[in-house]
Amino acid sequence: MTSIFEITHKDICGRIGRLETHHGIIETPTIMPVVNPNIQTIKPSELSKFGAEIIITNSYIIYRKPELRERALREGLHSVIGFEGPIMTDSGSYQLSVYGEVEVNNRQIVEFQQLIGSDIGVPLDIPTPPDVSWERAVSELDITMKREKEAIGFKKDMLLAAPVQGSTYPELREKAGRELSCCDFDLFPLGAVVPLMESYRYSDLVDVIVSSKKGLSPAAPVHLFGAGHPMMFALAVSLGCDLFDSASYALYAKEGRYMTVRGTYHLDDLQHLPCSCPVCSSIDAEELIKNEKREELLASHNLYATFAEMREVKQAIKEGSLWELVEQRCRAHPRLLDGLKRALYHSEWIEMFQPASRATFFYSGPESALRPEVVRFKKKVRNFKLDGRVLIRAKRQENEEDFDHVLEFKAPFGAYPLELKETYPFNAEVTDEPDYESLTVALQNTLALMEMNPEAEFTFAYKKEHPLMTQIAQKATLTNY
Amino acid sequence: MTSIFEITHKDICGRIGRLETHHGIIETPTIMPVVNPNIQTIKPSELSKFGAEIIITNSYIIYRKPELRERALREGLHSVIGFEGPIMTDSGSYQLSVYGEVEVNNRQIVEFQQLIGSDIGVPLDIPTPPDVSWERAVSELDITMKREKEAIGFKKDMLLAAPVQGSTYPELREKAGRELSCCDFDLFPLGAVVPLMESYRYSDLVDVIVSSKKGLSPAAPVHLFGAGHPMMFALAVSLGCDLFDSASYALYAKEGRYMTVRGTYHLDDLQHLPCSCPVCSSIDAEELIKNEKREELLASHNLYATFAEMREVKQAIKEGSLWELVEQRCRAHPRLLDGLKRALYHSEWIEMFQPASRATFFYSGPESALRPEVVRFKKKVRNFKLDGRVLIRAKRQENEEDFDHVLEFKAPFGAYPLELKETYPFNAEVTDEPDYESLTVALQNTLALMEMNPEAEFTFAYKKEHPLMTQIAQKATLTNY
Repeated sequence: MTSIFEITHKDICGRIGRLETHHGIIETPTIMPVVNPNIQTIKPSELSKFGAEIIITNSYIIYRKPELRERALREGLHSVIGFEGPIMTDSGSYQLSVYGEVEVNNRQIVEFQQLIGSDIGVPLDIPTPPDVSWERAVSELDITMKREKEAIGFKKDMLLAAPVQGSTYPELREKAGRELSCCDFDLFPLGAVVPLMESYRYSDLVDVIVSSKKGLSPAAPVHLFGAGHPMMFALAVSLGCDLFDSASYALYAKEGRYMTVRGTYHLDDLQHLPCSCPVCSSIDAEELIKNEKREELLASHNLYATFAEMREVKQAIKEGSLWELVEQRCRAHPRLLDGLKRALYHSEWIEMFQPASRATFFYSGPESALRPEVVRFKKKVRNFKLDGRVLIRAKRQENEEDFDHVLEFKAPFGAYPLELKETYPFNAEVTDEPDYESLTVALQNTLALMEMNPEAEFTFAYKKEHPLMTQIAQKATLTNY
Repeated sequence: MTSIFEITHKDICGRIGRLETHHGIIETPTIMPVVNPNIQTIKPSELSKFGAEIIITNSYIIYRKPELRERALREGLHSVIGFEGPIMTDSGSYQLSVYGEVEVNNRQIVEFQQLIGSDIGVPLDIPTPPDVSWERAVSELDITMKREKEAIGFKKDMLLAAPVQGSTYPELREKAGRELSCCDFDLFPLGAVVPLMESYRYSDLVDVIVSSKKGLSPAAPVHLFGAGHPMMFALAVSLGCDLFDSASYALYAKEGRYMTVRGTYHLDDLQHLPCSCPVCSSIDAEELIKNEKREELLASHNLYATFAEMREVKQAIKEGSLWELVEQRCRAHPRLLDGLKRALYHSEWIEMFQPASRATFFYSGPESALRPEVVRFKKKVRNFKLDGRVLIRAKRQENEEDFDHVLEFKAPFGAYPLELKETYPFNAEVTDEPDYESLTVALQNTLALMEMNPEAEFTFAYKKEHPLMTQIAQKATLTNY
């Protein structure tokens, strides 16, 4: 593992990083716009103005077209593409997955990427699709990893990416991640996830990301290969993805599709442009639809929207409010909400990486009650030793002096020492009335606290209808608050 | 009631409208940037480029400054301000609320507004703050309404706004709305709500809006006086507010505050600009902080963000997805979520106005289970007459032919005829697993259906842990699904 990647800020499992290449240092998370060497809706030299620090193109397309190949070998990749910053190249794996074969082998394409001066090259891996048989997933993964490892010998100073495959089998993704982490690779793309995103299978995508990350080193830069819709950046970054790439900005523009963090619109369905970007602030929907430069304008909007969201994600990491952003973004579609719920199944794992203190905790729904902060508190509750008369209350009571200990009760946490109320996460902003799930977690934790301290005499000044109240009534005196 | 306001599209209680003035027709909902005749961060003539169709200024400030007053009387308001579109004028009520008195009476200020050519004038009402005594609220409301009614006699062809006051007493707001609706007013500002917004009391704000709206005619244009933060536009519009106004874009800019639909940042805390507007796409956070035109650039950003959100709201109304936008926006802060929860207390009222069919129903959390569509279905359930063997199931069962009726079960609705599954709202996109609140509503409706049809023999192919399952088991055979 080389040290080309340095992590400077963290929140949840997301991070701000610096990735060093031969053509400069880039800041992650970021997205690499896909540049097709043949068709260019937006000139590569103009991509920087939208915020692109690095782009990706396909070395196989260049390799197959004699005039492009000759030029690339003669002048170098950067001159052919017309971009001065770092360029990553794909290998033809995508064509392999679509057409079943390619006219190049692993050695040829890796050496070609090295020769033309790619900053980050990719071996000819096999992008095994979701839901294939276990046998196929295993055998294709074996070939992929063999090719990836041999590619180390075919390249010189080019950075080398090692795609993590394994279809929708978490065990295989984790195993692949673990095995690849031991070799001298620089970047780890999570491969063959596009079919999951195309069918909105965000829960499965979350499992693929988390299982791969469990295998990989936490210090490794991770690329979610083919992911480029701004609606899922926050979720994917929160689980530890650092790089994204996508041709969507241009492909969508061709089809008249308009990207936003809330989803995709077809331009013909828009009567107002719900965006503040330079395109949408200078033209109205009707003018855009009729404009002869419509495709280019739409591609520009898609890029502006994409990079603005990446800045929003980065800002959230730096200030420690990424959970809040993720929970908001995942309400754009119920399938994304499923993805968030799935991510929270992994709260115990996330908790190992998440910084202990963050900006604030905004409750946004039942999912907030499953956040790592709540999981962490649940473990801590077991260490509270209490004796004598203990008051647990939501709001200040008149007779607090009569008790040996006073604990505050707040969902989704439960009961905690009053002295901690202004500290994170107990300074959480929550709704006036807790949702059922939030109250359930808080009452469970309170019950556990009572059970751990059988000698103490509890008074619980909080009355709500809830199935757990019967059990609590057996361990505490209930009073109104 | 004149017919200067025409409603062209509706969703929830929100609407797109056309408001006719002497200086042109504007489309609502929209926001009127506040222009201070003395201090101008952004030139009024440039406001149109951000999307402003109408602005608001203060006639009392003009009235009190001799040189401004003379110019306004000589050249007219539009020339003094430098804006060609419609201009609304406030009356000095704000100064009255801050300083306790003003050097003008109701007749003087109304006639002055008429004389200088204001498009929409406001009488000298008393903005009674929240939480005052009932007696004060009543007596100030009496004075306000007396002044408003007499103002009709002081004006000629100027449109006249009649602020609805009543502090935080819903009865008074509703009564004021009802009484004012009977007179010849053109616009109904809901007054004295700024203190509620400043302290994030969105639940109380919702009550003020809904109670005022209950009194007012549904056809009346409503102005939420002093509201200008984009984070609450969706919620306020969904309850039937058509016009907003705010000086925040400029005042915030002066204090280095950066507005977004997710809340307000202090510029010094920003390391990335989370926005795609022309300002934020052309400069980075550090450059903006150091820029000598920082205040103007920040005011521009605030305006771009504000008008982009208004376009987003309008687009959502036109396509019938305003609920989805409201539910997403209200997750920006737990107090806004409280506001959403409060709005849903009024679902029965909203249901009377909400169009029957909308684009789609995206489930976003427990609040979705309280939406008017669900309330409406609950009423309809009572009309389903069933006999014989009835199967209620979530997923297709093998033995469906053995039953006389097959109903589909889907939270948050409950059981509905299979034939309706592709129609609105049963084509809702929901999460894989229902939240507790959503399942509760669905099981309550299912239980009600069983109770309404005691002759039928029910089989319920759905097993979940839930307190209501015991009751359902008494009325149906439970099977796995």
